Amino acid sequence: MSNAFGQAFRYSTWGESHGPAIGAMVDGVPPGIALAEADIQVWLDKRRPGSSKYVTQRQEPDAVRILSGVFEGKTTGTPIALVIDNVDQRSRDYSEIKDLFRPGHADYTYFKKYGLRDYRGGGRASARETAMRVAAGAIARKILLQAFPDFRVRGAMTKIGPLRINPEKWDWAQVDMNPFWCPDAGVVGMWAKFLDMVRKEGSSAGAVVEIHASGAPAGLGAPVYAKLDADLAAAIMGINAVKGVEIGDGFGITAIPGEDAHDEMRMRDVPGKNAREVEFLSNHAGGILGGISTGQDIVVRYAVKPTSSVLIPRRTVNVHGEDATVVTKGRHDPCVGIRSVPVGEAMVACVLADHWLRHKAQCG
Amino acid sequence: MSNAFGQAFRYSTWGESHGPAIGAMVDGVPPGIALAEADIQVWLDKRRPGSSKYVTQRQEPDAVRILSGVFEGKTTGTPIALVIDNVDQRSRDYSEIKDLFRPGHADYTYFKKYGLRDYRGGGRASARETAMRVAAGAIARKILLQAFPDFRVRGAMTKIGPLRINPEKWDWAQVDMNPFWCPDAGVVGMWAKFLDMVRKEGSSAGAVVEIHASGAPAGLGAPVYAKLDADLAAAIMGINAVKGVEIGDGFGITAIPGEDAHDEMRMRDVPGKNAREVEFLSNHAGGILGGISTGQDIVVRYAVKPTSSVLIPRRTVNVHGEDATVVTKGRHDPCVGIRSVPVGEAMVACVLADHWLRHKAQCG
Amino acid sequence: MSNAFGQAFRYSTWGESHGPAIGAMVDGVPPGIALAEADIQVWLDKRRPGSSKYVTQRQEPDAVRILSGVFEGKTTGTPIALVIDNVDQRSRDYSEIKDLFRPGHADYTYFKKYGLRDYRGGGRASARETAMRVAAGAIARKILLQAFPDFRVRGAMTKIGPLRINPEKWDWAQVDMNPFWCPDAGVVGMWAKFLDMVRKEGSSAGAVVEIHASGAPAGLGAPVYAKLDADLAAAIMGINAVKGVEIGDGFGITAIPGEDAHDEMRMRDVPGKNAREVEFLSNHAGGILGGISTGQDIVVRYAVKPTSSVLIPRRTVNVHGEDATVVTKGRHDPCVGIRSVPVGEAMVACVLADHWLRHKAQCG
Amino acid sequence: MSNAFGQAFRYSTWGESHGPAIGAMVDGVPPGIALAEADIQVWLDKRRPGSSKYVTQRQEPDAVRILSGVFEGKTTGTPIALVIDNVDQRSRDYSEIKDLFRPGHADYTYFKKYGLRDYRGGGRASARETAMRVAAGAIARKILLQAFPDFRVRGAMTKIGPLRINPEKWDWAQVDMNPFWCPDAGVVGMWAKFLDMVRKEGSSAGAVVEIHASGAPAGLGAPVYAKLDADLAAAIMGINAVKGVEIGDGFGITAIPGEDAHDEMRMRDVPGKNAREVEFLSNHAGGILGGISTGQDIVVRYAVKPTSSVLIPRRTVNVHGEDATVVTKGRHDPCVGIRSVPVGEAMVACVLADHWLRHKAQCG
Repeated sequence: MSNAFGQAFRYSTWGESHGPAIGAMVDGVPPGIALAEADIQVWLDKRRPGSSKYVTQRQEPDAVRILSGVFEGKTTGTPIALVIDNVDQRSRDYSEIKDLFRPGHADYTYFKKYGLRDYRGGGRASARETAMRVAAGAIARKILLQAFPDFRVRGAMTKIGPLRINPEKWDWAQVDMNPFWCPDAGVVGMWAKFLDMVRKEGSSAGAVVEIHASGAPAGLGAPVYAKLDADLAAAIMGINAVKGVEIGDGFGITAIPGEDAHDEMRMRDVPGKNAREVEFLSNHAGGILGGISTGQDIVVRYAVKPTSSVLIPRRTVNVHGEDATVVTKGRHDPCVGIRSVPVGEAMVACVLADHWLRHKAQCG
Repeated sequence: MSNAFGQAFRYSTWGESHGPAIGAMVDGVPPGIALAEADIQVWLDKRRPGSSKYVTQRQEPDAVRILSGVFEGKTTGTPIALVIDNVDQRSRDYSEIKDLFRPGHADYTYFKKYGLRDYRGGGRASARETAMRVAAGAIARKILLQAFPDFRVRGAMTKIGPLRINPEKWDWAQVDMNPFWCPDAGVVGMWAKFLDMVRKEGSSAGAVVEIHASGAPAGLGAPVYAKLDADLAAAIMGINAVKGVEIGDGFGITAIPGEDAHDEMRMRDVPGKNAREVEFLSNHAGGILGGISTGQDIVVRYAVKPTSSVLIPRRTVNVHGEDATVVTKGRHDPCVGIRSVPVGEAMVACVLADHWLRHKAQCG
Repeated sequence: MSNAFGQAFRYSTWGESHGPAIGAMVDGVPPGIALAEADIQVWLDKRRPGSSKYVTQRQEPDAVRILSGVFEGKTTGTPIALVIDNVDQRSRDYSEIKDLFRPGHADYTYFKKYGLRDYRGGGRASARETAMRVAAGAIARKILLQAFPDFRVRGAMTKIGPLRINPEKWDWAQVDMNPFWCPDAGVVGMWAKFLDMVRKEGSSAGAVVEIHASGAPAGLGAPVYAKLDADLAAAIMGINAVKGVEIGDGFGITAIPGEDAHDEMRMRDVPGKNAREVEFLSNHAGGILGGISTGQDIVVRYAVKPTSSVLIPRRTVNVHGEDATVVTKGRHDPCVGIRSVPVGEAMVACVLADHWLRHKAQCG
Repeated sequence: MSNAFGQAFRYSTWGESHGPAIGAMVDGVPPGIALAEADIQVWLDKRRPGSSKYVTQRQEPDAVRILSGVFEGKTTGTPIALVIDNVDQRSRDYSEIKDLFRPGHADYTYFKKYGLRDYRGGGRASARETAMRVAAGAIARKILLQAFPDFRVRGAMTKIGPLRINPEKWDWAQVDMNPFWCPDAGVVGMWAKFLDMVRKEGSSAGAVVEIHASGAPAGLGAPVYAKLDADLAAAIMGINAVKGVEIGDGFGITAIPGEDAHDEMRMRDVPGKNAREVEFLSNHAGGILGGISTGQDIVVRYAVKPTSSVLIPRRTVNVHGEDATVVTKGRHDPCVGIRSVPVGEAMVACVLADHWLRHKAQCG
């Protein structure tokens, strides 16, 4: 259905940014996993607005409550209900934009679909819904960690507007040390100046984000319509403002000759054990071959369009079929890509948890 | 499930390239639509191997038969079973590659998932399965055409290896006049020479394909987990060898300032009618905003990796955990992207038919 | 998934009887339907405990709140979140039954499935969950009423313990005039005496309930795996304590000769119109032929087992694998069948709303 | 979707009785299970028409072919396609009944749903589709047997028309020794005479069938919307002509006092082992408590209506809205309940296989 994600690990979300609360229900979670609100809150805090001057200054504590499915500190196997109260529903005057279709927003399409629209912050099209993706992703991580203690998913931003990182300077340790989840310390200063400029001009910038998941086993996915990469593509393309998704080398692989584009294999000794294991000599494939994981790092990259709201007047039409001009005022996120990083991580975790449970059903 | 695609319009496929036949079952088709085998065959012929020297010389007539769901020339609303007999199951000797994991293929991951593998042509991982996608897509087109007489979906190749078309020279009329579905007559000669070279070297080349769907209504999709773009991304990423998907400007949109990246709107006169309609002044969004169609052309672009099989020796391992070398021999597709074009068209048609029926359920 | 019901009209529920709240999320609701909390509350009040001495004296106001999906008094097409706070979580001492598997309850099977159990009131196995079925059913009724203004679903109890009604005395007007939803005024006194006796003895009694839905159109359902009767059977059998389901004549039809068992048809004048319509001369089929509705009343009947908790000592085992004796104390529902009537009505409404939307998808 | 059954173990069927073939596709089957056509044929032969004078004399060999999903004698984990050619498509003249809605058949409802109908034998409403249920059930049995070597599902007929067996004389050994799957040798002669009479009169008789599944583990199912009994009810009610379903004591339990209706438990020694296990002292519940299996025999009972086609003239209407009379001629099944027994067994096996895989996903 329209508001649920996944099959065996399945979560559903509800709520609008200007209603009393938003929530999710997470179904299919194995019983007996230790889970507390703090396990979820840590990831929500990472996504939270207001954390730097480069993201919206809307202030939401985003404190999550677990209302069901956990008993005596452990999951019970029954649905876990999560709720976050909407605290900062600023009683703003919407009369100016109430009848206008803002370019780049879902206003027009929402209206064409439903014959109505919730003009208070975009209704379900608001990025506020992504808080629940992050919350569900926190539970997905717990499921995977229980089965695969080395499992880890983390994201980084590799481009803001026209400015790329140098991939050879990638350092995961840098990612948490700047407000951009940037893995290349050398570009942080330039990005800061660029975004300051963008913000002052009332403009906005796009971004590219890259998610790596390590420690997941080979064998997740299926060869035809449950391909791991297809489900990852849907999960990521479904994040607000995303316009492109790549696995591994993505579009870049089209320019590599066939003999170099495919990852060769060799046997290697398993460190510290009297055993041998398969080693891939490269990872052009991004950890997925024929829709099934190889056991290497799973690498997903995505493009986020510039924030739709800009402080510069744009041409549009209104619900009465008249030409009009729209200008956004007030709080403003110059680059929504920044806040999408924890969301992208969460979606990758959710897809992997779902495929892990589905794999167990058939092959476990 | 693993072998079905779609929700309200839903098809399932079965069969391996080296079994007696492959087939599909298409469920949810509205009753009363005129449908004959020829309506499907026309699209299968477009995908058929052996049609030029740039695609595999495997000879399969790919003649489809309808075994159910059509009565007196019309769909009955019950499942439509489609079968294509496998004619060219060359009784080849597989002993050389039986135990080897070919780089770039699903051999290794298939084995890790299922504990076994069908070494005769890749089992379900064979691109032969895509014939059934094309067949299902033919039915999807009929559904959409009945509701939207101007509906049309068509694809073109925009890049082979490192060689791009000039987008300003795009001419749909050229697409059917060369073996590459190339819309820019100016690059056809160069592409031919390049692929001749690639073929002689036993190498292979990647490609970029672009699909346009026009005539579909605004309002298809949903704001959160039934986003039209998310479902398109899954559908396209699920095609064999695809490593990247873009909607509209895709990754390119990240470098455009926010005020230019979002499509402005104006009212215009409807030609020949005393009425006014919304006009978008550009289509950076690729016809989708907030997961819902705008009524503009839907534009999807994807990257196809170079054919995995190359005639150049590659390092690998075998099922016994030993290092080995693999060389592909015999029939060979230097650029699988070419044959993916009708498959991409079909998948876009299937997604749109599915969303059209789902839209009717809730909002019809 | 395990905690969702329906396909196009789909609701999910969460919560345990002893947690802070229970809730549901209703997805797929068409936009533009007037909906207020009072539209749901009216049906919840009908199910509410404590309404007569024949049902449990647990006091729950069961006040429902709508947290999303309704804007300016109308459904928006986005998920409707419903919450009921648990007010009467009596801080009871569970130490006596904490380790015991109560006969007839889900204690033992829950433990075998999940390896743990929520001993406070049965966790998800508690009949408290049915409040959310009633709430979802209220929304289903609104959907159906908008499309079919004469739509109506209502239930009655036809048997308590061994005591049946006389079906020839069936009078719908009686149903709301006694605490048993009994349509035969002649048996109400006897039932009251019988249940008084059952209660005093600490025993419990089973019941048979019959649900009639009128005003739904012909054509809902499908011939094979989306049969209307199959989905009704699942919906009803899924209500706590139900052990049997019948459509129309049910088991009774097995003793009727074939020539009498099937409903004959005749054309008749449509009252007040210059038109003719099909009339069935009987309704042995309960309004469903070949899995598809006929347009007649849909008749579903079900058996509810006696309340599992009795005040009489029963033999059982405990979680440590020891023989034990269990006696229920405290609040007690002598006949859970009574409170199941509004739940049965709701489930029938949910199935019909779902099939109505699914029908529109394919044939609308 | 309308033509698929199950979730993790999921099969889809297609085909009409008067088309070239019928078929199924079985998805989700674990890899590595030995499977040959003979494993399926044995159950199809049990259901096959023409096996005694008490069932239709239509002659169909019903020889099943496996077209995919099995390699070197073992399942591969990919979809298993099954096909049965329709051999006996008697080129009968349908002109007499082409425009008539036969009472008790799906003719009228099919027409109301789809606006057309396949008058040749009922289209998808034909009981011929049940051959594919039996075939899928054969695979389900293999899945369960691999995990639970003592697993067994078998059915018996307990009533024909008004004539019941004596349950105290139940002897499974009798079931295969008479044409009625009757477990009580004492009633076989009476049933034979009764059905002879029914057949001569051109009438038909209903039946009650009981299915027992033994050897399945405790823990299958879920407490709310994936209840094992709810899924069994849907599976059984979805068999052609079924009008009622019971689990365990079914409707009979309503007359039993609560203290006797619920199965008590005791610990017992496991024979031949130094261990103890739970023993239920009765099985009123039919092996399911709170929607989850107890490990006891699962007992499902169902009512089959008399064959709709009778040789006695019945009143009806035609597609032109005129009163008419219909008389069935030719081949005729006096009691369709007989041939439903292997179908009922198959559906129970399919539900259990599906729940076993689903259980592994979450709790495995």
